[in-house]
Amino acid sequence: MPISSIDKEFKNLDTVRLSDEGDSVLIIDQTLLPNEVKILSLTEEKEMYDAIYLLQVRGAPAIGVFAALSMYVLSLNNREEDRDSFIIEFKRQKDYLDSARPTAVNLSWALKRMESVLLKEAQVKEKNFRERFLSVLKKEAISIYEEDIETCKKIGENGVTLIKDGDGIITHCNAGRLATVRYGTATAPMYLAKEKGLNIKVFCDETRPLLQGARLTAFELSKSGIDTTLICDNMSASVMKKGWVNAVFVGADRIAANGDAANKIGTSLLATAAKRYNIPFYVCAPRSTIDPATRNGNEIHIEERNPKEVTELWYEKRMAPKDIKVYNPAFDVTDADLISGIVTEYGVLKPPFTEAIKGIF
Amino acid sequence: MPISSIDKEFKNLDTVRLSDEGDSVLIIDQTLLPNEVKILSLTEEKEMYDAIYLLQVRGAPAIGVFAALSMYVLSLNNREEDRDSFIIEFKRQKDYLDSARPTAVNLSWALKRMESVLLKEAQVKEKNFRERFLSVLKKEAISIYEEDIETCKKIGENGVTLIKDGDGIITHCNAGRLATVRYGTATAPMYLAKEKGLNIKVFCDETRPLLQGARLTAFELSKSGIDTTLICDNMSASVMKKGWVNAVFVGADRIAANGDAANKIGTSLLATAAKRYNIPFYVCAPRSTIDPATRNGNEIHIEERNPKEVTELWYEKRMAPKDIKVYNPAFDVTDADLISGIVTEYGVLKPPFTEAIKGIF
Repeated sequence: MPISSIDKEFKNLDTVRLSDEGDSVLIIDQTLLPNEVKILSLTEEKEMYDAIYLLQVRGAPAIGVFAALSMYVLSLNNREEDRDSFIIEFKRQKDYLDSARPTAVNLSWALKRMESVLLKEAQVKEKNFRERFLSVLKKEAISIYEEDIETCKKIGENGVTLIKDGDGIITHCNAGRLATVRYGTATAPMYLAKEKGLNIKVFCDETRPLLQGARLTAFELSKSGIDTTLICDNMSASVMKKGWVNAVFVGADRIAANGDAANKIGTSLLATAAKRYNIPFYVCAPRSTIDPATRNGNEIHIEERNPKEVTELWYEKRMAPKDIKVYNPAFDVTDADLISGIVTEYGVLKPPFTEAIKGIF
Repeated sequence: MPISSIDKEFKNLDTVRLSDEGDSVLIIDQTLLPNEVKILSLTEEKEMYDAIYLLQVRGAPAIGVFAALSMYVLSLNNREEDRDSFIIEFKRQKDYLDSARPTAVNLSWALKRMESVLLKEAQVKEKNFRERFLSVLKKEAISIYEEDIETCKKIGENGVTLIKDGDGIITHCNAGRLATVRYGTATAPMYLAKEKGLNIKVFCDETRPLLQGARLTAFELSKSGIDTTLICDNMSASVMKKGWVNAVFVGADRIAANGDAANKIGTSLLATAAKRYNIPFYVCAPRSTIDPATRNGNEIHIEERNPKEVTELWYEKRMAPKDIKVYNPAFDVTDADLISGIVTEYGVLKPPFTEAIKGIF
C-alpha cells in the first residue's frame, strides 16, 4: 500500500490487529512516526521479537494484544506433528517473545493467558489437536484484542462526561491509541468528545527525554482532526495561567491502593501546576493498572534509564558535557491529593480513593 | 592555544575581555559549547556583529560588556582624520552593532554609555582628539566590564548567605558566568559557596527548547568542580520529592515593581513545584533588571519564538508531525507569591517585594 494512502487512513487503523486473511499480525511501525506511517505484516518469531524489542509496537496494552495475536500466528505455522511437541514448540516461542521486554507486565500476562487456554485444551485427548489448539488460541487472542478495545471505549465514555464543549486539555506522554488497539486511555475521552462533536483543544507535552508526546500523541490527535498544539514540558504552567486549560488527562503505569499514580516522568510536576491553577487532573487507566497490594506510591519502584537518552539520543551532536552526571528516572508518582479523579472502565473514581478503589475490586 | 589547554583553563577565563595587548576583544565561542572551548579574538566590525547575531556571545550582561569593548577596539582602528568624521564613523559602527539583536536592552544601554562619553569629550576643543577619545572610550569600556564583575560578585556574596554546607540546589537555563563576564547571577552564590569550601550539589534543568541548561550551565558548573547533575525540566518535582533540594536559584530577564519575575520559560513551573515541597525559591539579578515602571507580571510582554526550535532544532530528523501547531513562549512570569527572595547587589529583598524594591531605588 503506498505510504500516502496509509497516511490518509491512519485515523481508522488499529495499532495492532490480525490481517484480514488471518495469517499475519499487522502493526503500525512506531519507530518511523511521525515521519512515515508504515504497516508491518509479521509472521516470523524473529520479526515479532524485534517488533517488541525495537519498540515498533509499544504501550503496555498494545504489546499484550500483539503478543497474543503473535502466538496464534506462530502456532498456525507450528509444524510439530504430535501434541506434546506442538506444546513444547509453543512454549519455546512464548518464552522467546517474553524475553523481548522482561519488565512489560502486559506482555507476560497476555502470553500466560494464551498458554493457559492451550494447556487446558491439551487435556482433551482427542485426535485433531492442531485444529482444536488453533481454534482456542485464535479465540483467546481475539478476546484479548476485543477486550482492549472495549475497555478503552468505556474509559472514553466515562471520561467524556468530564469534558465540555470548548474545553482546553493538556496531556502528557502517549497514553493514546498508539499504546492500545484503538482509542487509548488518556486520549479515549478526547476521541469520544470529537465523535460527539464537542470542540476541544489539546496541548501535548513533548515529554522529554523520549519525546513520546511530540512524536506520537501530537501525531495521532492531529491526524484525527483534533485541534492539537505541541508544547515543551516546561510550558504547562504558562498555558494554564493563560486560562487555556480546563482539564488534564494522563495515563498511568501503576496505581496504588490509596490512589497514588505512577506515570511517565513529568506527570507529577504537571499535576502540581494543575493544582495551583485549580484545574482538575484526571488519571485514565483500566482497572488492571490498579494494584491493591501496593499501599502507596512509596512502594512503587522507579526505573532509572540510560543517561544517553538525555544527553545524546535525539541530537546530531552531544548537547551536554561529556561525562556529565544525569539523573534520568523514567517515571514519577503523582500523590493522590493532586488527583481529581481516576477514570476506569468501571466509572470515574473520586477521592477518597482508598474507598473508591475497594469498591471496584 | 591548543583546545585541550584552553579547556583546562576554562575555569579562569572571562566570558568576554580585552586582550592583554589591548587591541582585540576575546570571547569564548558559546556556539561550540559543550563540545569545544574556543577563544575568538575579534577586531573587525563584521566579526563583532556576527558574534552577537550568531550567539557566540550571549546573556544580556555579557553582550553589554562585549559591545562596549568592541566599540573601543573599533575606535583604535578608526582612521578618520578629523574629529567630526571620527564621530560619524563611531556612530555608524555603534548603530551597526546595535542592530545585531534589536531587543537586547544591555546592548543598547552599553553602546549609549560609550557614545555618551565620546560626545562629552568631543566638546573639549583641543587638538589631540584621537588620543583623548581613545582614552575615555577605554576607560568607560573597562568600567562596564568591571562593574559587571563587581555586581555579580556582590550578588554572589549576598546569595551565598542562603546556602548551607551540603545543600542541594536546582537552577534553570543559564544565568551563569557564561551570561556575564565572571560568576554569573544565579550561579554566583554557587561559585562563592564553592570558594568557601561548602559542599553543594547542583541539579541543572536542561531547559527546552534551546537547552541552555544542558549545554552551558551543566558545562560551566562541572568544569568548576561543582557536583553537577543534569535533569530534564520535567524531573524537578521528582528530585524535590526525594529531599535532594534545599533551594532554587534562577536568574531573571525583568522584574516588576511587585516582584513578579519574567525569566526563561519553565521558571514558573519550577517555582510551583518548589512551593509544594516548601523549598525556598530565589531570583538573582542586578538592580538594573528591576523595572519599577512595570507594575506587575501582566504588563510584561512574552516573546513567542519559532516553532522549529521545538520541532526540529536539535534533532537529526523531525521529531514532531509536519505542520503541527506549536506554542513556544520564550519566557514566563513567576508570581511574586512563589518567590522567597530577590538576590541583588544591594542585598536579599524579602516579601512584601513592593516595599523592598522601593527601598533600593
